[in-house]
Amino acid sequence: MKPNEILEGVRQFIATNQSAFIDQLCDFLRIPSVSTDPDYREDVCEAADFLARHMKDIGVAYVEVIPTRGHPIVMGHTELDPRRPTVLVYGHYDVQPPDPYDLWESPPFEPDVRNGRIYARGAADDKGQLFGHLKAFEWMHQNGVLPCNVKFVFEGEEEIGSPHLARFLAANHERLACDVVLVSDTSMLSLQTPSITVGLRGLSYFEITFRGPDRDLHSGIYGGALLNPANALANLIASLHDPMGRITVPHLYDEVAPPSPEEHEVIEYMRIWDAKIQEEAGVLALSGEAGLSAYERIAFRPSLDVNGMWSGYTGEGSKTIIPAEAHAKFSIRLVPNQQHEKINELVRKFVDANIPKGIKASLKVYHGGDPYWLSPSSLEYRAASAAIADVFGKRALPLRTGGSIPVVSDFKKHLGAETVLLGFGLDSDAIHSPNEHFGVENFLLEIQTIPLFHWYYAHLKQAGR
Amino acid sequence: MKPNEILEGVRQFIATNQSAFIDQLCDFLRIPSVSTDPDYREDVCEAADFLARHMKDIGVAYVEVIPTRGHPIVMGHTELDPRRPTVLVYGHYDVQPPDPYDLWESPPFEPDVRNGRIYARGAADDKGQLFGHLKAFEWMHQNGVLPCNVKFVFEGEEEIGSPHLARFLAANHERLACDVVLVSDTSMLSLQTPSITVGLRGLSYFEITFRGPDRDLHSGIYGGALLNPANALANLIASLHDPMGRITVPHLYDEVAPPSPEEHEVIEYMRIWDAKIQEEAGVLALSGEAGLSAYERIAFRPSLDVNGMWSGYTGEGSKTIIPAEAHAKFSIRLVPNQQHEKINELVRKFVDANIPKGIKASLKVYHGGDPYWLSPSSLEYRAASAAIADVFGKRALPLRTGGSIPVVSDFKKHLGAETVLLGFGLDSDAIHSPNEHFGVENFLLEIQTIPLFHWYYAHLKQAGR
Repeated sequence: MKPNEILEGVRQFIATNQSAFIDQLCDFLRIPSVSTDPDYREDVCEAADFLARHMKDIGVAYVEVIPTRGHPIVMGHTELDPRRPTVLVYGHYDVQPPDPYDLWESPPFEPDVRNGRIYARGAADDKGQLFGHLKAFEWMHQNGVLPCNVKFVFEGEEEIGSPHLARFLAANHERLACDVVLVSDTSMLSLQTPSITVGLRGLSYFEITFRGPDRDLHSGIYGGALLNPANALANLIASLHDPMGRITVPHLYDEVAPPSPEEHEVIEYMRIWDAKIQEEAGVLALSGEAGLSAYERIAFRPSLDVNGMWSGYTGEGSKTIIPAEAHAKFSIRLVPNQQHEKINELVRKFVDANIPKGIKASLKVYHGGDPYWLSPSSLEYRAASAAIADVFGKRALPLRTGGSIPVVSDFKKHLGAETVLLGFGLDSDAIHSPNEHFGVENFLLEIQTIPLFHWYYAHLKQAGR
Repeated sequence: MKPNEILEGVRQFIATNQSAFIDQLCDFLRIPSVSTDPDYREDVCEAADFLARHMKDIGVAYVEVIPTRGHPIVMGHTELDPRRPTVLVYGHYDVQPPDPYDLWESPPFEPDVRNGRIYARGAADDKGQLFGHLKAFEWMHQNGVLPCNVKFVFEGEEEIGSPHLARFLAANHERLACDVVLVSDTSMLSLQTPSITVGLRGLSYFEITFRGPDRDLHSGIYGGALLNPANALANLIASLHDPMGRITVPHLYDEVAPPSPEEHEVIEYMRIWDAKIQEEAGVLALSGEAGLSAYERIAFRPSLDVNGMWSGYTGEGSKTIIPAEAHAKFSIRLVPNQQHEKINELVRKFVDANIPKGIKASLKVYHGGDPYWLSPSSLEYRAASAAIADVFGKRALPLRTGGSIPVVSDFKKHLGAETVLLGFGLDSDAIHSPNEHFGVENFLLEIQTIPLFHWYYAHLKQAGR
């Protein structure tokens, strides 16, 4: 089958079954698989079982629910043909808590279809997007269009940071061997301006403590004669940026890669984002590295933020002390080709070189992650882009996002595969918020796009391009 | 009677009655007049009654226990002779809580005399020092040596910030009219190096809030595109000091008076304090305004300290947010002739001029106080100094301290009188701590010094010098 025949076939399939598909998705959404709350433990398991049953129903040859020390992982795959490349589809069936409950216009676990959207917790993140892959597979299986071997890995702990996934990937790297990982858990700019996520930032996260006097001191009796650790820490934090908004840690920018040629055009287009970001964030003005748009600052440049700080007396009224200690949590978002372990060392050196006299400092380094970039000229990207072009009738923009998706690094590390982030949500889907929803149109476009991705990926791979 | 006759007389009086005086003080110390804790309310009243009874017993003509909305004030005075100047003696009969109880070697409210010290809560602060004035008065009354009219005001709320004293002074300024206020509630350098407290610092106290985004934001999705209020506040705090350790608020130093000629010598002597302050504070090194000793920094220069700060996530682990708000409490200790209300305005201007783009700032100004200075060439000081010289055989050092005693400003404001801070404690007395004590020698030297102060003050005043 050729791409245009596949598209035609899937569209027929959707036309016939659309309302059944939405009903099935609603059944899935009705299970409150909140992973963050132990009270929902049985519901999470029920969602895993629902998935496994449904995968068997639609023809996934081998399906297994695998217990972990946390919530189970649902795995499945087709009969494996060694002549074909293998696509590993990743998704998560757990959801965020529904709070604040009162702000939902329809109950979070009673899916409601209105205004062309499916409203429910998990509709877009990620049950709906995960389910699109199953419906696409259902068509491919029914029609014998399986240009790639397909493996599925669906976890139930994404919303709590995937604590058991990396170990699972490491332990099962042979069973999970694949050529590419395909994930639909992100958004597009809009249905009129489709986009594929090609960049994620990494993270280095620190907690610093400055200790001065061995106890809180009277600020009258001692004030002026010794360095106040809170003032000193403020000074250190301030020194982390220069007046142009750049981070001052030496060599921090050494490995920051410039935008690729394909991305320059996107940067121009995304200047329209400045107003959007300002409004969304609810700030009086944007700020940051001089001369750059919000998109460039968020997507292409490292950023350093204090995430929390505390020292001394924080209650009502006045207390005249010199605090014994001051603390801050701060983190740096990293961009390709920065590596978080190198950055950790640079920050440690900077701190060591800037501990003021009279202060004992300690720096704790938290678990971090590397940034991710899929070149728009890569085979993986081109397969996704071709599929989007066929379905949407438009070229996708290769878009970077400022956040991190740690599992992407885990796939690279444990399976050696690139990940294609082919998301069909929208920024306005209210994921993690009340009234989360997923557009019916988005869902149906996803089902059309996936089989084409498999087809283009297999053909590009076969052609060695 | 001449000073040498007075001294001889008081010493006889002490020799005869020393153990009775200590017994009486111990009776006073036995009453747990903890003002901070409502459970001790009756004990506080009992201490007031004890004082009033004792004042009558020793010949104070008019004694009154005056209720306030808090704890009572004990007032008393001699027959008033309009030809004599009037000394108002202030002290407080309330004490700090005894916690931590376990660290006391003898129970805090069972006074124990050992190693030449009286151990009990309140021994030095301020029951013992207050009681010295009564014993001195007892001798003066018995011997008809009353060169000044004497008024007493003893409050029971000093340890909770004297919330009702200022109003009381304002309402009773005619009954309390006096030429000088005499307070023994401070310490000397040592019995070998007697000192008189001539300077106190004032205080301006602020709380600043920086607001950025209208809620905590995801530091990945937005990081780099907007100013983080915690980083911005750290920057503002850092900008409050220059690299030489001076406060950068414009005009802040305009009214800082240089040390008086008498104080230059003390500054030289007090260089020995650097090591003491460093050890006491438990810091690795001293710091502060360049080129100054710890004593100069604490006593003669304004200082700015963060007293508390808080923003964002302060719990365990990592949370990747850009906080919506950041807060800090900070205060400036003021020196003569700074005025706290002017300083408040300078700080407000500085903050207004330094609010970064994208931040909403608010500054709360707390209740402050002015610094205090008694010139070593003043009549009041010279009277105290002459009394010390006679009793100790040494000249007293005019010493400033970095803390504040708000009631001193209240006396100036409501009674128009200077205050002489003639304290007989030592820094090692452990006031506010377990095992508070007052040296028996200190107590007896105080009883000798007070009558001489009255005599010198009356004679200098009469001579118009």
